[in-house]
Amino acid sequence: MILILKPGMLSESPEYKQLLAYLTNLAGITVRAHTEVGIEQTLTEVYLIGNTKALLLEDMQSLPCVERVVRISEEYRVLGRHENDVRPAYFDYNGVRFGQDTLNVFAGLCAVDTLEHVELMMKALRDHGQVCTRMGAYKPRTSPYSFQGHGKACLPYVFDLAGKYEIKVIAMEVTHESHVEEIREALYQTGNSTGVILQIGTRNTQNFELLKIVGRQQDFPVLIKRGFGITLDESLNAAEYLASEGNRKVVFGLRGMKTNMGDPHRNFVDFAHVPVVKRLTRMPVCIDPSHSVGIRTGSPDGILDVMHATAQGVIAGANMILVDFHPVPSKALVDGPQALLLKELPLFLEDVRIAREAYEKRVELVKRYQKAG
Amino acid sequence: MILILKPGMLSESPEYKQLLAYLTNLAGITVRAHTEVGIEQTLTEVYLIGNTKALLLEDMQSLPCVERVVRISEEYRVLGRHENDVRPAYFDYNGVRFGQDTLNVFAGLCAVDTLEHVELMMKALRDHGQVCTRMGAYKPRTSPYSFQGHGKACLPYVFDLAGKYEIKVIAMEVTHESHVEEIREALYQTGNSTGVILQIGTRNTQNFELLKIVGRQQDFPVLIKRGFGITLDESLNAAEYLASEGNRKVVFGLRGMKTNMGDPHRNFVDFAHVPVVKRLTRMPVCIDPSHSVGIRTGSPDGILDVMHATAQGVIAGANMILVDFHPVPSKALVDGPQALLLKELPLFLEDVRIAREAYEKRVELVKRYQKAG
Amino acid sequence: MILILKPGMLSESPEYKQLLAYLTNLAGITVRAHTEVGIEQTLTEVYLIGNTKALLLEDMQSLPCVERVVRISEEYRVLGRHENDVRPAYFDYNGVRFGQDTLNVFAGLCAVDTLEHVELMMKALRDHGQVCTRMGAYKPRTSPYSFQGHGKACLPYVFDLAGKYEIKVIAMEVTHESHVEEIREALYQTGNSTGVILQIGTRNTQNFELLKIVGRQQDFPVLIKRGFGITLDESLNAAEYLASEGNRKVVFGLRGMKTNMGDPHRNFVDFAHVPVVKRLTRMPVCIDPSHSVGIRTGSPDGILDVMHATAQGVIAGANMILVDFHPVPSKALVDGPQALLLKELPLFLEDVRIAREAYEKRVELVKRYQKAG
Amino acid sequence: MILILKPGMLSESPEYKQLLAYLTNLAGITVRAHTEVGIEQTLTEVYLIGNTKALLLEDMQSLPCVERVVRISEEYRVLGRHENDVRPAYFDYNGVRFGQDTLNVFAGLCAVDTLEHVELMMKALRDHGQVCTRMGAYKPRTSPYSFQGHGKACLPYVFDLAGKYEIKVIAMEVTHESHVEEIREALYQTGNSTGVILQIGTRNTQNFELLKIVGRQQDFPVLIKRGFGITLDESLNAAEYLASEGNRKVVFGLRGMKTNMGDPHRNFVDFAHVPVVKRLTRMPVCIDPSHSVGIRTGSPDGILDVMHATAQGVIAGANMILVDFHPVPSKALVDGPQALLLKELPLFLEDVRIAREAYEKRVELVKRYQKAG
Repeated sequence: MILILKPGMLSESPEYKQLLAYLTNLAGITVRAHTEVGIEQTLTEVYLIGNTKALLLEDMQSLPCVERVVRISEEYRVLGRHENDVRPAYFDYNGVRFGQDTLNVFAGLCAVDTLEHVELMMKALRDHGQVCTRMGAYKPRTSPYSFQGHGKACLPYVFDLAGKYEIKVIAMEVTHESHVEEIREALYQTGNSTGVILQIGTRNTQNFELLKIVGRQQDFPVLIKRGFGITLDESLNAAEYLASEGNRKVVFGLRGMKTNMGDPHRNFVDFAHVPVVKRLTRMPVCIDPSHSVGIRTGSPDGILDVMHATAQGVIAGANMILVDFHPVPSKALVDGPQALLLKELPLFLEDVRIAREAYEKRVELVKRYQKAG
Repeated sequence: MILILKPGMLSESPEYKQLLAYLTNLAGITVRAHTEVGIEQTLTEVYLIGNTKALLLEDMQSLPCVERVVRISEEYRVLGRHENDVRPAYFDYNGVRFGQDTLNVFAGLCAVDTLEHVELMMKALRDHGQVCTRMGAYKPRTSPYSFQGHGKACLPYVFDLAGKYEIKVIAMEVTHESHVEEIREALYQTGNSTGVILQIGTRNTQNFELLKIVGRQQDFPVLIKRGFGITLDESLNAAEYLASEGNRKVVFGLRGMKTNMGDPHRNFVDFAHVPVVKRLTRMPVCIDPSHSVGIRTGSPDGILDVMHATAQGVIAGANMILVDFHPVPSKALVDGPQALLLKELPLFLEDVRIAREAYEKRVELVKRYQKAG
Repeated sequence: MILILKPGMLSESPEYKQLLAYLTNLAGITVRAHTEVGIEQTLTEVYLIGNTKALLLEDMQSLPCVERVVRISEEYRVLGRHENDVRPAYFDYNGVRFGQDTLNVFAGLCAVDTLEHVELMMKALRDHGQVCTRMGAYKPRTSPYSFQGHGKACLPYVFDLAGKYEIKVIAMEVTHESHVEEIREALYQTGNSTGVILQIGTRNTQNFELLKIVGRQQDFPVLIKRGFGITLDESLNAAEYLASEGNRKVVFGLRGMKTNMGDPHRNFVDFAHVPVVKRLTRMPVCIDPSHSVGIRTGSPDGILDVMHATAQGVIAGANMILVDFHPVPSKALVDGPQALLLKELPLFLEDVRIAREAYEKRVELVKRYQKAG
Repeated sequence: MILILKPGMLSESPEYKQLLAYLTNLAGITVRAHTEVGIEQTLTEVYLIGNTKALLLEDMQSLPCVERVVRISEEYRVLGRHENDVRPAYFDYNGVRFGQDTLNVFAGLCAVDTLEHVELMMKALRDHGQVCTRMGAYKPRTSPYSFQGHGKACLPYVFDLAGKYEIKVIAMEVTHESHVEEIREALYQTGNSTGVILQIGTRNTQNFELLKIVGRQQDFPVLIKRGFGITLDESLNAAEYLASEGNRKVVFGLRGMKTNMGDPHRNFVDFAHVPVVKRLTRMPVCIDPSHSVGIRTGSPDGILDVMHATAQGVIAGANMILVDFHPVPSKALVDGPQALLLKELPLFLEDVRIAREAYEKRVELVKRYQKAG
């Protein structure tokens, strides 16, 4: 059960203390408070965990400070979408809104290789009005003998260049808790001229210890990708690890499932789950067409499969796109074959725009029909 | 190797006979001629199978009657898209064109139950300008104790009503060779007032004996669906069974793959393969959002998952949509839970139109870019 | 609900007619009688289908002719193992018993190629005391351009040689109903010197029309293999199609599931399901290590993977083994790479014997413990 | 390329220094030395990575200190089994040998819950001659709201009791690098009266950062389990992360793959891969029948599926068994339904013995045949 408190309720206020005192005395109930400091106001939610069936909605609603009560199912307590649940389905970070209604493109390098390539990439993004990118510094690789990313060594120039080209948010995978600190430190050193959304890759979706640690900080939002070989439900539960530790600025990423049934694509594209995640949770949904499709082939209509997959995600309401570009794919150290060319960036962005417009028209259409009833 | 002969070449002509005589004398080569009688002209292709590596393109091109020579890979000889292959990627049937450039909606009943429901469905389709439908008479069911379809008993009224409501093509699954004869007979009895595209369902994708028999007739085009649990390549090879027996009016259908990785959908939606099938073969591609998604839930944007999946297929270039509607889903004998309501038909059609327009804009866009170079 | 009648009850007897008359008058109940003519006696079972919940066990038990009543769940009515179900879990054919307690080896040719190879194979079997074999005449192949088996042309010499070498049962795949007639005719022509168990391959597991037709004859028992890409439950339901039409001499075959998770094996070996099938149904369980494993590699202990998989099936109680041998694997027209060599036959048989003895010891062991309780 | 040095070669010896000096000067070659301090002697292997194709075997073999040279493929450099590779396929730890020829049973508690249950379990093991066990202290759970294990709090009594009951090795999962330190510390505090093999669970198979850290210590051997949803090859590459960092005391664990094709088992049992892992690598292979099967049902022969799966693994040469027992399964905090009862321990051990004897007979058999040739 969640008690949503009246806005601006301070934790030092007597009513708040009185409420907490009352709740903590309830038998068989654990109390957990979460405070979200927003730009305009501070919102507090109090989670009651345990034998909440014995509690009456009316009783709880009449407690001091309480504005609204939501009874939640067991699953995805914090991130889930429960009955009569009006909690917001978005968050803001560094001037960018991530919500179930917005769309942000994160085009960039799968793996940072050279300063020159980073600069070419960021300049192109700036020139096309983009303020987000992806930049891989820490790369988990199947074989221990493959290139593992430049790690923290590349952070200073990546962040500097991001500042120079007015990039506001970089999606960057972390594979160890120390990476969070390294990123924080490097950002600080470069004057916090950009922001980072921490990415948890598919190999770490159920690395619960990493999730707990990343969930305990609230400086950086988190993009958690669906896990290989586990059900969607299990991946959503993994996302809940982040939120249960306090960080609810979470985006959920679809990136295809590993099975030869998806051949000749590298993975089985799973973007039909975009609306499913939006229904089950309040998380914005990211799609990763590059890793899903994994090849650069196209169909006789002249459109690359990666762009088709992107359009498929977007027309169903995807909120974020993670896509690999590279100035010289043949020189990319990781996943070159699937990268789009820099010169394809405007085409890609316009293609996304067409699909997004179609999505918006579809939403308008269904609203019109619902009204007509 | 395929020798495409000059149009209008008659099999009785001396040049043709001379050509055949020459070819059949080639060592290690089997010769197979296929004649396609079109509205405007008759086209003949001669397939050379066996040790064709020893044959020179130039030599073959200089033979009498030969207009063009295409060297083909081993796979999907007839239906495949080979290098420099200019054979058409469409066919016409009963006034409807099925091609890699067209889009036809086949909304209808998964299983015919009553004459009333068939009439309600067809009337609604006619009222919304539709000339195609799906009507299941023969239903393969997991359990022998489930309703198996009304079979040939319902064909007379289904075909009569189709005539009445100006339906030109009905997609109808056949599960045994005798069904083809039953359909042909019933059509004849009802004055051939409509047409049928024979559907091979996912459980019979590798029922090669059925494919051979259906492939030997050319009265009806065929929609073959992808098989459960086999690779895309294996399903495309199954389609080739139809063509290798003579029937190349074949549409390939995507209907989701069976795996719990697709939960909560009934199957794992596989529409990212739409462009793949169009690249590998010259078959139009059908999507079946109803059986793929299998549930009627929707996302917070008010759009049903079935419609999202449909839009995803269409924006990537799908050419045919097979979708379940039912006047009273709760009374449907098969797959009621996934059926759309009759009153949702105009919404569905308009939603499809939006996605199709977006697809066409995307094709225009990429052409513009290609020209600009 | 099943009414098991007293043995020897004749369908012309007045009590039987009285019973049937009573039952067919029950509201909402369909009656279906099945008579099994055995060597020693005739057994009749009457199936009541429909609203059987309204019937009381006691009432039914007190009806004339009725020896015992079994209330069955919806699934696998005939082949299933229901509570208090004492119906037998075996059948006899041509002097060979197929039961959940027996073990028969069907070593042989995946595809018949030449008379010489058939003879070499059968002679080797006879020399090692074997009375069963596998011989593929009708081969379903992924590509229409691959060798499809010699079909009925090879039946005469296959059956003649079987007679000569005292082979009692040949497992032979059929892919079309006409094959049953062809086999029956060829057997007749060769003096019925051997017997055939009809095999339904994995591509036809849900070819329900073929199952119905094969289920309607009782001359030949049937080996039905598990389907690709469907759940075990769905495959067991497919087997029930055979039984619901009257043929309950059915063996269920495990042959691995198609997924790259089974690499480097050709399929994902599924023999852990041996005890599951024996628990859910009364069918003997066959394993096909050749198609499951699909390669001839072995481990450092010197034992081939095919033999390891066989031992795994047998030690868990498998009742039948279908295994590919070939005198000259390099000349085999189908699946040569996975075939064992003729000279490996005695090793294979002795290896099977060791595993079977271990299984029997395990059964003894658990019985001893259960008694000690 | 691996240079295996003469035994007892000291790193301070002039020949050794000379060798290293020579090798590090080779162009395009990275040199990595690994020293294994055994009971009887010290063995050193030098890995040459990079452009080793340019090096001649003869040249390398003639270098000082070098006893033998093995040219390795790219994959599984350290753990792999390469051509002419005579490196050992076993290791010793705390008096227990783990090899491709041995078999150790690790029966125990999936999750430690109470001291009493731990003691009951360990006493039963001691009474039946067992010196190994499994004890879960750190439990990765799908939901953040499930019991996550007692963690380091239970280590003191677990290790004390292990000492009391003469348990030499405990398999214990770690999910964070800090757990290794906690285990080391607790062992020290309890007088190192037992040993621990660190277990990397399926959710962390590709948690490469954890693997690197666990691989850098050599105090504890490691059991790494196969990952969900990735190929066997990818899981073996993950094991190589441990070895590439220096720890080659690695056991590879099979625990079933997550897919509904394995229903009604919890996972799809994958023990047919036992011989495959032994062929591709030099790692001993562990099977986990409890997590693979996940249910307590049995077949009509009276044997539980968990025991059938165990026998299947053992008869194919498995070297370690991880199996869940619990004194009171209904009170188990994790995975109770699949646990065997304490009173079933002697039955289980005898069942394993039968399967192992069968395996040994099979190895003898094949050797006899190979000799007879």
